[in-house]
Amino acid sequence: MTVQLAPIPDHVPLPAGFAAAGVHCGLKKNGQLDLGLLLADAPVPAAAIYTQNRLVGAHVHVCRDHLQRGDGLVRAVLVNSRNANCATGPQGIVDAQACCAALAARLGCPTEQVLMLSTGPIGAPLPRQRILDHLDALLEQASGDGARAFSRAIMTTDTYPKAIFAEDAALQATGFAKGSGMIHPNMATMLGFLVTDAKLPRAEDARAVLREVADRSFHRVTVDGDTSPNDTLVLLASGRGRGQSNGGALLTDLAQQLARQIAADGEGATRLMTIEVRGARSEAEAAHVGRVIATSPLVKTAVAGLDPNWGRILSAAGRAEVPFDATKARVWIGPAAVYENGVCHPEREGAAHQHLANETQVVLGVDLALGDAAADVWTCDLTKDYVQINADYRT
Amino acid sequence: MTVQLAPIPDHVPLPAGFAAAGVHCGLKKNGQLDLGLLLADAPVPAAAIYTQNRLVGAHVHVCRDHLQRGDGLVRAVLVNSRNANCATGPQGIVDAQACCAALAARLGCPTEQVLMLSTGPIGAPLPRQRILDHLDALLEQASGDGARAFSRAIMTTDTYPKAIFAEDAALQATGFAKGSGMIHPNMATMLGFLVTDAKLPRAEDARAVLREVADRSFHRVTVDGDTSPNDTLVLLASGRGRGQSNGGALLTDLAQQLARQIAADGEGATRLMTIEVRGARSEAEAAHVGRVIATSPLVKTAVAGLDPNWGRILSAAGRAEVPFDATKARVWIGPAAVYENGVCHPEREGAAHQHLANETQVVLGVDLALGDAAADVWTCDLTKDYVQINADYRT
Repeated sequence: MTVQLAPIPDHVPLPAGFAAAGVHCGLKKNGQLDLGLLLADAPVPAAAIYTQNRLVGAHVHVCRDHLQRGDGLVRAVLVNSRNANCATGPQGIVDAQACCAALAARLGCPTEQVLMLSTGPIGAPLPRQRILDHLDALLEQASGDGARAFSRAIMTTDTYPKAIFAEDAALQATGFAKGSGMIHPNMATMLGFLVTDAKLPRAEDARAVLREVADRSFHRVTVDGDTSPNDTLVLLASGRGRGQSNGGALLTDLAQQLARQIAADGEGATRLMTIEVRGARSEAEAAHVGRVIATSPLVKTAVAGLDPNWGRILSAAGRAEVPFDATKARVWIGPAAVYENGVCHPEREGAAHQHLANETQVVLGVDLALGDAAADVWTCDLTKDYVQINADYRT
Repeated sequence: MTVQLAPIPDHVPLPAGFAAAGVHCGLKKNGQLDLGLLLADAPVPAAAIYTQNRLVGAHVHVCRDHLQRGDGLVRAVLVNSRNANCATGPQGIVDAQACCAALAARLGCPTEQVLMLSTGPIGAPLPRQRILDHLDALLEQASGDGARAFSRAIMTTDTYPKAIFAEDAALQATGFAKGSGMIHPNMATMLGFLVTDAKLPRAEDARAVLREVADRSFHRVTVDGDTSPNDTLVLLASGRGRGQSNGGALLTDLAQQLARQIAADGEGATRLMTIEVRGARSEAEAAHVGRVIATSPLVKTAVAGLDPNWGRILSAAGRAEVPFDATKARVWIGPAAVYENGVCHPEREGAAHQHLANETQVVLGVDLALGDAAADVWTCDLTKDYVQINADYRT
């Protein structure tokens, strides 16, 4: 079960100056793609943000070190799935660096211009030789047509690849993401990649744009409130576009689409839920209340059961430590304002139920009546399939 | 499915000076008990703590008002299940006060010496006439043998009643609780009642003891991270015991047993989980980390799947915003230290799996290697039955 937002396009373009590839190197069973590459024609300004979990995968150390030593210039990003290279001790860092160095040697660039990211189960040593043995194949396949293959190579429990191309009059951008469980907004909540031809000449420009983009996209999606030790979002900007803008608006739109795809592909999901919070004193407060509602198991199971249970929505908002007055608040489910001014409207629950039953993209809203600020947060319902998938993950 | 900790005794005594009763007044289907009474021979010092949810049931307003106006002296506590009297507007408060006044008139005491608590679904008007019609029957049945009936009358989705008697050389105490979903430590996380013959002459003594007791018991249990608008814990102290102690130790022991019962009876639970946090800088910090682990859907589904997934335990601890060093931490599952000093021990996972598979009361532990403080938190696993129960709750 999963919510399909739109047909996945057969071809996903890349902005000028980028190539991509995906191969099978033997980590996943059944020959599925498990090693991906994003390649820039020349070193480009880059930025990354990482999990805030205290447990971090080896790649977080290596990426941070390489971006710092390389002045934020990146030539290539290598990604493996099916192994997180996390809780693997010093050997994990050695393994990741060895992969970066081997790829850099083939590209003729400094090692620090190569990043490596890993995703999958924690605790097993990285099978680094399999990766090293497939670097040549990966480079051979890298092309402007490689976005689809890359998006497949980074999948774990995702049921479909997440790759989106967007452009405006002046700029192009392609975004990739993986993730459908262990998803919560606490820095980048999965692996995400944004490549654009926007001009972000200095690495600090790239970092500023990336933070702004993430705050309004990946930081507003949650599946289960759990963060992964490997969550990382990477931005590469070739600067070859026609426009002079920093690409923030285009990248935010792209990242929001990817964030919605992650929620829609949440483990076991049957509904993509948009939590609309209105009437807050600040956008940050609105987003906070939205995240509390979006992580409530009771709200998420009610949606799975098609139950327009406004009491659970209001109760969840009520524990967000925001001092709103419940007798002035309003709660809506789709078109139906099921609670207003301290009173519920059972006669409107039929319309709310119809919304939950008939739509795969549903809206739950709350107005706190405190101010004018608003934010949307995306999540999915909590189903028996979520439990099944996560009870059986390693068996 | 539920975890049975111990056989429920046929008879639960009450301390000197207390009587209890439970009747069916027509709120629950099938003639089950739904109206309970705790009665003191004379007004006794009392204290209560309430939900910190911004949405609060009518009874929270009424209890707070009565305890304040009555100088913390209470003669009787009336409890109905199957209706939360929450989000019912001003009428809900009027209804609760009317029930208190009618009972006070029969007892010949001031209205403010009667408390009323409600639990059940939110949003429907309180069927107050049914309650009023059964006050005489309730008073007739009230006796020292009424603890079992009271404990049944306050049940909602509980699969068994929760009533425990405890005594030491000098004091006696009986505790009651209800709750198996919408359970999270944010003030009292359910309805709970503690009656004792300890001497707590002033209401402020009772409040101080109750806060201390709750911090080490009900504030350390979670089923799903959701708090209810009606959560309330009430303490009544008759002062008729032989001892001079304030009863804090005995009441803490009692309340911890009730808290464990609530977790064991968590909706859909197959395992009572004790999260042992060691090596923290303070007890509060240890309890905080324990609560984050205890609310992780990934940890809870892993236990449901009998998967000794130490990576999820460490990841959950890692997002608690406590700056520990994951390479010095230790994680254990039952007898098996599956992660130590940054390295996992797959060869010990068999023993950890056996612990999860063979025991219904399982232990997950983490040592943060920061200090000497410790705390235990109790929760249950997250199963498909939890989803089923909460998806279908109102249908």
